[in-house]
Amino acid sequence: MTTFESAAVIGLGLVGGSLARDLAALGVRVSAYDPDATHVAAAIRTNVIQSALDESLSGVADADVVVIATPVDASVDVLRRIATRATRARLITDVGSTKSRIVQAAEELGIGERFIGSHPMAGDHRSGWDASRTGLFVDAPVYLCAPRDTSAERMRLARSFWLDLRARPEPMSAEQHDLKLAWTSHLPHMVSYSLALALARAGVGRSYLGPGGRDVTRLAGSSPDMWTAIALDNGPAIEAALRMTEREMASLRAAIKRADQEELRARFAAARTWFEE
Amino acid sequence: MTTFESAAVIGLGLVGGSLARDLAALGVRVSAYDPDATHVAAAIRTNVIQSALDESLSGVADADVVVIATPVDASVDVLRRIATRATRARLITDVGSTKSRIVQAAEELGIGERFIGSHPMAGDHRSGWDASRTGLFVDAPVYLCAPRDTSAERMRLARSFWLDLRARPEPMSAEQHDLKLAWTSHLPHMVSYSLALALARAGVGRSYLGPGGRDVTRLAGSSPDMWTAIALDNGPAIEAALRMTEREMASLRAAIKRADQEELRARFAAARTWFEE
Repeated sequence: MTTFESAAVIGLGLVGGSLARDLAALGVRVSAYDPDATHVAAAIRTNVIQSALDESLSGVADADVVVIATPVDASVDVLRRIATRATRARLITDVGSTKSRIVQAAEELGIGERFIGSHPMAGDHRSGWDASRTGLFVDAPVYLCAPRDTSAERMRLARSFWLDLRARPEPMSAEQHDLKLAWTSHLPHMVSYSLALALARAGVGRSYLGPGGRDVTRLAGSSPDMWTAIALDNGPAIEAALRMTEREMASLRAAIKRADQEELRARFAAARTWFEE
Repeated sequence: MTTFESAAVIGLGLVGGSLARDLAALGVRVSAYDPDATHVAAAIRTNVIQSALDESLSGVADADVVVIATPVDASVDVLRRIATRATRARLITDVGSTKSRIVQAAEELGIGERFIGSHPMAGDHRSGWDASRTGLFVDAPVYLCAPRDTSAERMRLARSFWLDLRARPEPMSAEQHDLKLAWTSHLPHMVSYSLALALARAGVGRSYLGPGGRDVTRLAGSSPDMWTAIALDNGPAIEAALRMTEREMASLRAAIKRADQEELRARFAAARTWFEE
């Protein structure tokens, strides 16, 4: 028995597509919308979804739960469009990497009581329906961010939704989430992008890197649209994290310049201690 | 039939230990020295090596090939100690991540004719005998850097040595090697260390990172001794590479600060193009 009998998923990318697959495997009736009609067709052909939603999204009226799985710059607009249409939904949620803006939007749209923002810590640099797969959320932490006017009952429903997918839900305020994620996810992406851009400018292709260098640059293959939206949505927190990383890098460079063996060893040892903790 | 019948390996860490294992598996008689006597004992117990060298390294006289597998700040000193002792060796080589200094030392010691520097692009952030394993060099590029007074015959021997281990040898000048490696290996390490140090300073533990962030910080678990020596040995080239990365990071941060959507998307798209090439 799953928590919901029917679901509408808006966006069939890596996360939305994987969600639809898992829900279908659990016997949930899934409908979906994606701007790329070939993804919707593929999802229907493989019996992942049973019906396509048209662009008006009026079909969300039939769903017990509605999941917004678009890049974060589109999610508030989608939330606005479904707010009056998702009349039957006991839960409306999203899966974006930033949470303050959408939680605030849910409050302003008067659906704060039925909305819980979700952020599953799953996926990788790949994107799109073709990268989606079953089991993506198994053991993944999922941050749940509630509006001020939510109820304990709604949080229980959101937890159940993710527990059905074998994920590990963790409630957290939207502000706390965005600050935390600036460090744990957004910063590593920006660092990986910066290294990739420096290597590109130096004319050093990725195929010349060893396994270590390929690891450090893996996130540079992430979706430009998705990460532009995240960088803009959580700008000040990401900026602060980047500034601190630049300072660490400049200090390391200065220690190399003055051939300061003791300082270098202390820094590398501190990094390894952090790594092993 | 292997190229050599007997080998002496100085240093039984990840690379030296793995070399000894592979050579032993090929039927080569291996002797070894390591400052940690427990590693030597373990290598004897598991039949990887047949005899221990004492600290004088006088036992290298019996070896057809001598491999120096110490951190790069110790390798020149070891080379000096074995120069007069390795009387039978047809090939003396090392496996360090920097090559100019040791190649120059071989010339100065008058053993340039028998020395070829090697750098296998294998291994990961782990270090020490316990991390060593067979097959580490299969399909790995190995850069071979010869002194000015080397012979074609010596290069052929070095190539055969690595081909026996199923690696892919590639000749390259020591200067070219060090410049190239500053970008392809040393820079990714310094970037990973910088990110780890910033996260440590912010109080964000590695366990809070998603799979992407764990990839970017994996190299921060590397050996502090080994990387201090590399950073000092290839300082100017690493400094230049770090400076360019800091500039890319600062530009990205500036684009985030002024919410420049077009610029961000262009940069992330350029990084992905580099990633996919």
